[in-house]
Amino acid sequence: MGIVVQKYGGTSVANLDKIKNVAQKVAHRYRQGENVAVVLSAMAGETDRLINLAHELSHTPHLREMDVLISTGEQVSVALLAMMLNDMGVPARSLLAHQIAIKTDTSHTKARILDIDADVLNKIFAAHEVAVVAGFQGITKDRDITTLGRGGSDTSAVALAAVLKADICEIYTDVDGVYTSDPNICIKARRLDKISYDEMLEMASLGAKVLQTRSVEFAKKHNVPILVKSTFTDDGGTLVTMEDSEMEKEVVSGITYDKNEAKITLLGVPDKPGVAATLFSALSNKNINVDMIIQNISTDGMSADMSFTVTMTDFEKALSIIGEINKTLGARDVLGDTSIAKISIVGAGMRSHAGVAAKMFEALSSVGINIMMISTSEIKISCVVDEKFIELGVRVLHDSFELEKPGGNFGEN
Amino acid sequence: MGIVVQKYGGTSVANLDKIKNVAQKVAHRYRQGENVAVVLSAMAGETDRLINLAHELSHTPHLREMDVLISTGEQVSVALLAMMLNDMGVPARSLLAHQIAIKTDTSHTKARILDIDADVLNKIFAAHEVAVVAGFQGITKDRDITTLGRGGSDTSAVALAAVLKADICEIYTDVDGVYTSDPNICIKARRLDKISYDEMLEMASLGAKVLQTRSVEFAKKHNVPILVKSTFTDDGGTLVTMEDSEMEKEVVSGITYDKNEAKITLLGVPDKPGVAATLFSALSNKNINVDMIIQNISTDGMSADMSFTVTMTDFEKALSIIGEINKTLGARDVLGDTSIAKISIVGAGMRSHAGVAAKMFEALSSVGINIMMISTSEIKISCVVDEKFIELGVRVLHDSFELEKPGGNFGEN
Repeated sequence: MGIVVQKYGGTSVANLDKIKNVAQKVAHRYRQGENVAVVLSAMAGETDRLINLAHELSHTPHLREMDVLISTGEQVSVALLAMMLNDMGVPARSLLAHQIAIKTDTSHTKARILDIDADVLNKIFAAHEVAVVAGFQGITKDRDITTLGRGGSDTSAVALAAVLKADICEIYTDVDGVYTSDPNICIKARRLDKISYDEMLEMASLGAKVLQTRSVEFAKKHNVPILVKSTFTDDGGTLVTMEDSEMEKEVVSGITYDKNEAKITLLGVPDKPGVAATLFSALSNKNINVDMIIQNISTDGMSADMSFTVTMTDFEKALSIIGEINKTLGARDVLGDTSIAKISIVGAGMRSHAGVAAKMFEALSSVGINIMMISTSEIKISCVVDEKFIELGVRVLHDSFELEKPGGNFGEN
Repeated sequence: MGIVVQKYGGTSVANLDKIKNVAQKVAHRYRQGENVAVVLSAMAGETDRLINLAHELSHTPHLREMDVLISTGEQVSVALLAMMLNDMGVPARSLLAHQIAIKTDTSHTKARILDIDADVLNKIFAAHEVAVVAGFQGITKDRDITTLGRGGSDTSAVALAAVLKADICEIYTDVDGVYTSDPNICIKARRLDKISYDEMLEMASLGAKVLQTRSVEFAKKHNVPILVKSTFTDDGGTLVTMEDSEMEKEVVSGITYDKNEAKITLLGVPDKPGVAATLFSALSNKNINVDMIIQNISTDGMSADMSFTVTMTDFEKALSIIGEINKTLGARDVLGDTSIAKISIVGAGMRSHAGVAAKMFEALSSVGINIMMISTSEIKISCVVDEKFIELGVRVLHDSFELEKPGGNFGEN
């Protein structure tokens, strides 16, 4: 008998009717003779409700207690689904982090999974029961409750699939797979049948919200195949798996965008060693991640202009830290810009194709979009542009790389 | 330093303002240098909301999963209070049943506490932290979550006080103590300063809803003094403690009533051995508790009439079981009556005073109340009467035993 891990997100268990629908899907697989472990998120809206409650009570809610509070959402979902399954004659058992030892580090509200006790789950399979596991939560070695951050249930599911050596980890959500771009802004966006871990990682971290980035890292490390599917239809689905020769044919697999960025610019930074180190270690000490950085010689030739991007959430804090440092640094001016966005192309095939970047810049320039910053990796190219051009940029790139057609998309076919 | 256990009920933590109020009360005691363990119920209405959710999903919700579901209510309360305390500069730590090993048996939704690990709590006190413990919940030896039944947080608090050898277990609720009768129907009802465990047990089981019966049994067994107080005022309070000579002076301490009963009568039961055994073991097999039983020789002299009472919840089920049995038993008729109620007087002093029962019957009869059934114990007398007479009955008994006056109330003073 095979082992399958299924994860259902918040919209899939948003109300009792939807929970019944999930129960039917699970029951179907169970009756086919498979060992099924189901991982659930909280009912849609519940985690936000609990977080708001905490913020009404405290400006800086105690993080250990925040995790105790928000982990209740998943506990409610798993109890209700296990109840429903038992009612349908499918023996099922809800399991919380402390019951199957989902061990994590102690970073409350963004903990990382260290280990899961597969023994408990294997015993449940041996008793022909369905394991209904609370996602998003973990437990430290001191038995404190932790949570894994937004989208953490994806990582719970993949980690579970890894320790169980499951045949597949199915992630059920409200879209039917991973698209070449956001179908809401690009009508020609096409669902991908397959995508590599590396491409999915770039897509996830660049703003495609289908899977939590960490879950894909985990899947890659343990070689867990992930099938992203819709809870509400049997069609479609995208398989996230190891790169194969077929994928390499696709130079560009997807176009992503991220509006959640802001830019900070220092004009006329005195040209002396250690300036960048001072700036960026000050930010990193406050847990602010910097995404892109560029530096030019300033117009006067004696100093430099420097720009970098941070998330919108960190923008105010970063601006005030930099303003403080600049009292001793002596740059001519510090500017902030929140009306920027990042647009990226991702594709494993870029490794073996020259001219992809040039084609991207040409396409953007052909419709008058000015590129402010550029950053590249082996399999992606990102450009920061004025936020107002995002939809236009996505569409022109999608057309330019002919992503509406399966197979090659760099003019070779 | 002393150890105090404080329990706050659902109305005391019903919203964020009330949780702040509780935090201030706890902080005050902590700052006086006491070791404080706080036990909380779920926010008022939350447990019912969760139970309704389960019943919408299933006619007979799986009991193991019901406990997983409803135990989340207390988890939310303790997280919020611990958050608030930390915000006020009072180090506090929420604790769930699995974290302090509140071991129970496996009777889901009505489990009994077997043991609590005092070590974890003593370490928390040693670190000068407040322990904020989730009431109502426990854990079995297999790490399954259990709950202790309605009002179970009272028992959590008393059990905690017992293992910690606390100086006192303070139960904070929406009334300021235990009254000689229900102040809502008897304007002369007087708050008692002190009451014995045995009297409180009778009062609790007879329908006074201040404390869960099992919590009082636990307190009696381990000699834990309980102080029942209002969360919303500093005045008042009733101490539930061992019987002392002062209490014995009070022949009657309180008048209680219970409208949650129904009567079943079998007319003309054939007079042969084993009939009662057949009837009551059939009911007990279905977990139906029978309260009062009376049996008379029937008018024809050849058969018996038998009446007994059950709770309203069990009434329909009991009636159908008895109807089924009567197909072979052959009683002339089976009647049900839901418009009855029980009125009781309770007092430790009854042990040493004759004539209390006579005085009760006279008082009821003086206002034309007919007594249908009578049952007595060492320290209580209960009468079943027509439900419509309940308020009248309570008031006339309260006057008759002069309960509005402290001290002797049987004409001796």
